[in-house]
Amino acid sequence: MVFATTAPVLAANDDRMVRNFLLDNGMEVVVIPDHRAPIVTHMVWYKVGSADEPPGKSGIAHFFEHLMFKATANHGAGELNRAVSEIGGSHNAFTSYDYTAFYETVAPSALEQMMGFEADRMRNLSLTDDDIKTERDVILEERRSRIDNDPRAVLDEAVDATLWQNQPYRIPVIGWMQEMEKLNRTDAVAFYNKYYNPNNAVLVVAGDVAPETVKALAEKTYGKLPRGPELLPRVRPVEPEQNTRRTVTLTDARVSVPNFSTHWVVPSYRTAERGEAEALDLLAEILGGGSRSRLYQQLVVKLGIAAEAGAWFQGTMLDATNFTVYGAPRGDAKLADLEAAVDAEVARIAKDGVTNDELDKAKDRHVRSVIFARDNQDELASMYGSTLATGGTANDVEEWQDRIREVTPDHVKAVAARYLGSDHSTTGYLLPKTEN
Amino acid sequence: MVFATTAPVLAANDDRMVRNFLLDNGMEVVVIPDHRAPIVTHMVWYKVGSADEPPGKSGIAHFFEHLMFKATANHGAGELNRAVSEIGGSHNAFTSYDYTAFYETVAPSALEQMMGFEADRMRNLSLTDDDIKTERDVILEERRSRIDNDPRAVLDEAVDATLWQNQPYRIPVIGWMQEMEKLNRTDAVAFYNKYYNPNNAVLVVAGDVAPETVKALAEKTYGKLPRGPELLPRVRPVEPEQNTRRTVTLTDARVSVPNFSTHWVVPSYRTAERGEAEALDLLAEILGGGSRSRLYQQLVVKLGIAAEAGAWFQGTMLDATNFTVYGAPRGDAKLADLEAAVDAEVARIAKDGVTNDELDKAKDRHVRSVIFARDNQDELASMYGSTLATGGTANDVEEWQDRIREVTPDHVKAVAARYLGSDHSTTGYLLPKTEN
Repeated sequence: MVFATTAPVLAANDDRMVRNFLLDNGMEVVVIPDHRAPIVTHMVWYKVGSADEPPGKSGIAHFFEHLMFKATANHGAGELNRAVSEIGGSHNAFTSYDYTAFYETVAPSALEQMMGFEADRMRNLSLTDDDIKTERDVILEERRSRIDNDPRAVLDEAVDATLWQNQPYRIPVIGWMQEMEKLNRTDAVAFYNKYYNPNNAVLVVAGDVAPETVKALAEKTYGKLPRGPELLPRVRPVEPEQNTRRTVTLTDARVSVPNFSTHWVVPSYRTAERGEAEALDLLAEILGGGSRSRLYQQLVVKLGIAAEAGAWFQGTMLDATNFTVYGAPRGDAKLADLEAAVDAEVARIAKDGVTNDELDKAKDRHVRSVIFARDNQDELASMYGSTLATGGTANDVEEWQDRIREVTPDHVKAVAARYLGSDHSTTGYLLPKTEN
Repeated sequence: MVFATTAPVLAANDDRMVRNFLLDNGMEVVVIPDHRAPIVTHMVWYKVGSADEPPGKSGIAHFFEHLMFKATANHGAGELNRAVSEIGGSHNAFTSYDYTAFYETVAPSALEQMMGFEADRMRNLSLTDDDIKTERDVILEERRSRIDNDPRAVLDEAVDATLWQNQPYRIPVIGWMQEMEKLNRTDAVAFYNKYYNPNNAVLVVAGDVAPETVKALAEKTYGKLPRGPELLPRVRPVEPEQNTRRTVTLTDARVSVPNFSTHWVVPSYRTAERGEAEALDLLAEILGGGSRSRLYQQLVVKLGIAAEAGAWFQGTMLDATNFTVYGAPRGDAKLADLEAAVDAEVARIAKDGVTNDELDKAKDRHVRSVIFARDNQDELASMYGSTLATGGTANDVEEWQDRIREVTPDHVKAVAARYLGSDHSTTGYLLPKTEN
């Protein structure tokens, strides 16, 4: 599965203090006590995603996520699945640009068994040519049905590849069809041996379990695995300065209502100067973070020209990321008029900034939405996993709320003015075939 | 220097039969007798260009071209330069996406000396940290002056990176500034040892010299070098199918007259089905190859709305290449009107094709232009060098005229209809700051 990262999270309360340690083989462990229900979420995050793939091998990170469900030296294919089902648990996996993760949600008594399965497949996968062929057919079909049959997904791919001209986020997580078709066992084994090792993994356990128990079980299972080869720092090609305004247009008979989205390259939590990513989070909230936002209030409620309008910022990334505004017209409104109105709101915030009151309310909304997300144990665990897998620390997660509170109106205005210029944006248009 | 490749060339006449052989260490040699004047052009083409660079190391192929003029174990820096100047010759070098070449034009009596210099620097370069630092400053200044100070060059880079979303032609030959700044001696030495070897080089000698002489001298000089490591086939990431129309706009106060260019991904001589690249060459000639072309006649002469308008096809490339139309308005004409008129000419040729008479005249013009280019010994040698360095053979050069003659009006119409659709094009706009 392909996955959108979540924003960082609040400090843990004292009564559920997060613990953080290293195994001798280099595997990082985070334990997040959460005793509200007798369940535990067990996740293994690998610090490898599609943006780490070798040239011409796009899709291999996601392909490998699939291959991890094949037989190992100790377990047949499907055994993990059956074990989880029998105890009424759930499990899944996802791949993103910067990481690949596997998780199970089960009763605490099954934690050791799950660790056993994950530790086993981290190093003991026995991939056959038949596994490769079968699963390659699966990912090719996944691409056909989820991307190639969906005009919006096709457009999104081309927009990403136009926004990112050098950084590897230009390549779709699922891969380019012509490269996926050629992925083979040699590629897969090389990828496995390079990246699937304890010193490239983060174990996150959230739930009704004591840190000491997790530590003992982790040492008993993962601790037996040898440290893998040392990896070079994840230094990837970065984006040159953007000096142009770019557009990408897809016209398709399957589209009924047109829409547009405009994207800018902005820093992520990992690449930003202190405070900038937090200001971008709040800028997205104020500009287009929901029904209280400027775009929604002005374009959907007041002018009535938009069926939808909003903004988002994807902060939890290893490299520079994107800030996006979007909209779809309502009724007889023209797409061009809506786009001009959205542009005007962006320009206004960059010129005039935001008020103290508006910012305080945005902080409250933003922090509350993260508290709400944290209520879901999977999401709670994912906040730590995604942060640690993109170069952050558990501390970053815990201090995030304080850093959000420190943002001033000047910070928000400054990031809008610095990054959201109309002369270096990338806009995608999805148009019905009949429109002229 | 950065270099635009030339088109392939005519069959040699019997009295100037081209000879083609391999040295024992794998170096290819082409000898093109040309006895009109007592000079000889000596070129060494390496089958490595910017599109072969490792991720994040953009610019290293061109950087290495510069480093090849530094001291070797046997010659000081500048010795080659002085030797060529003393005998009244000339010399230079250039880097492109697919190759890097070095050449000298001298009296035949100096051929052995030139071969000695080139064979020496192919393997005996002694690069110091000081060389790296000095020459890196030179290429950074070259980038600043030739790209960053020129709005058109900045736009062209962004257009290339928008047209090519996966294939390495999206990366500028000179490199991205932020990557050039970090190129170091380790990178340079690795690049040298991998690519600068006789089995990755083509020697082209054109001029007033007998093939037997060239062969004996080549064996005496280049023949002494050991074969280098075997290289993998040059299989690079290829482009996914383009389903979108894309635009890139640069607005700059230094621009006085606006212009546009539209680009399509098309096959090169190396990747095309038989006859397609020849048809694309003739399509470019008919549509916009000079003052007899449709675009020129219609837009510059008849309608008077264009200061310039034309088309070109860059066929001599290792991978898929681009077909381009362009124009700049004249007087009060609007850029949008000119673009629409150019689009109409493209659509007309795809719908209605070309006449026999028009095609015959285009063949004559196109063949004559290549005969004319061949009159220049450097260009004659380059036709062979660029073809051999992009996977072709001397035979391909020699048979090219016959293959051009075989193109029919249906072939031209078919490639226009197949490749030049408006829903999968990429257009660059260069606009004055004052224009709204």
